[in-house]
This record gives sequence, C-alpha cells and structure tokens, in this order.
Amino acid sequence: MVEFQTPHLDAVFHALSDPTRRAILHRLTEGERTVSELATPFNMSLAGASKHIKVLEGAGLVRRHVQGRTHYCQLEAARLAEAQEWLRTYERFWTTRLDDLEEILREEDRALARSSEQSPSSPAKSDKTSRSTK
Amino acid sequence: MVEFQTPHLDAVFHALSDPTRRAILHRLTEGERTVSELATPFNMSLAGASKHIKVLEGAGLVRRHVQGRTHYCQLEAARLAEAQEWLRTYERFWTTRLDDLEEILREEDRALARSSEQSPSSPAKSDKTSRSTK
Repeated sequence: MVEFQTPHLDAVFHALSDPTRRAILHRLTEGERTVSELATPFNMSLAGASKHIKVLEGAGLVRRHVQGRTHYCQLEAARLAEAQEWLRTYERFWTTRLDDLEEILREEDRALARSSEQSPSSPAKSDKTSRSTK
Repeated sequence: MVEFQTPHLDAVFHALSDPTRRAILHRLTEGERTVSELATPFNMSLAGASKHIKVLEGAGLVRRHVQGRTHYCQLEAARLAEAQEWLRTYERFWTTRLDDLEEILREEDRALARSSEQSPSSPAKSDKTSRSTK
C-alpha cells in the first residue's frame, strides 16, 4: 500500500479541510499578503491567523518570508497539483454517473419529442392519453 | 465569504487526509466490498474499519447498505468532483509555474544548440569564449 503512504497528501488535504484556510489560500491568489492583512477580513487575532498559516506552511501550500518585523505570505500551488492528480484517478467514476444522467435526460427529451410529434398529427386520439404522455 | 462556507468540502478534505481512508476508497473502485473485506488488508479490527468508513460516509464518499448482518460499502464519487472543482480554480497558478519552467528549459536548449552550432564552424574563436557560452 506504498502508493497511499503520501504524507504530502495527508497534510495538504488536512490543510484544505478548514474553510478559513481555504479562504486564506484564495486571498493569496491576488498576490503576496502580510499575516496582518490575512487576519483582518476574518476578525482573527494575529495568533489565530498565524496558527492557520503554520498549517498551510506545513503542507507546503504557503511560503512565508520575514522582512524586519513583517511576515509576508505567498501561495505555493504545486502541492495542490498533487492533490488534483490524486482526485483525477477517480474522475471516471463521477463522469460515468454524469454520462448516465445525461443519457436519461436525452431519453426523456426523445420521449417528449415523440409525444409532441404524435399529438398534432393524431387529433382523433383521446385527450386523456395525449395529456398523460406529456 | 459565503463561497468558502462549504461544509461538504470540509468533510471531504478531512476524510481524504488519512491514508487508510484513501486506500479504502481505492479498493472500492474495484466494486462493492463488505466492511470485513475492507478491514482485512490493513490488519484492522472491524471496529477500526467501521470508524474510518463512518468518516467516509459522513463526507458522502461511501454509501453503506445492510443485508442481514453484512454491511456492504459502495464508492460515491460525486463529492470528489466538488473537491476537484475547487482545486481547478488554482490550476492556473501551478500551470504558470510549469510554463515558466518549460520556458527556462527551452531557453537552455536553445543556448546549447547555439553554442554547439558555433563550436564546429568557428574553430578560430578563442577557446575561453567558446567554453563560457556552454
């Protein structure tokens, strides 16, 4: 079971399991931010923000550098690519389900089209039947 | 920050943060399995396996149905699609980095090609210059 012993993935998925951490990552897509700038929109203390950022750093999703007393954070997206690669192996399972759904909807469309073709050309048919096929 | 308040994603990413749970999902790609069949390769107790399966069920990644005393588990992949959709919004950040890397490698190839074109056709050039362009 070596392929599942991927500590990167453990840390990445754990980091992503918190909505505040996902929101921090999203803010970093706009560019580098200080810890203080990241804390503000969440009404978080610097200590609280720092705790979340440490989890993101530990997962390799954020890089922090210090200038004087200011800590700057940057998004590191490569590990997200690893997570997506893992998910990709399951793609066929949900696409199959979506294909099935699409086929069901198409079949319903075809049935509707058939019933509306029949209706005008056979006005003699009972009104009851025509209503029930709609 | 409504878009990040997605309890599904919290539960899905949390479920995926454990290597045993990822391995269980992988086994379920082969088809329906009983809890006992899922426990065996990990030398886990039924209670241990059941605990992991409950987390997967809670995240909507596994569906369990009971026949008599046997519990059968099935993969439910749709929620993985939601996780991949979330990750997709970050794709441009890692593809940009990969594009940059590709461009650097191409530039190195071009530089190598130029230096190897120069070397045989200009033997008169100083050996020092030719070496420094390699």
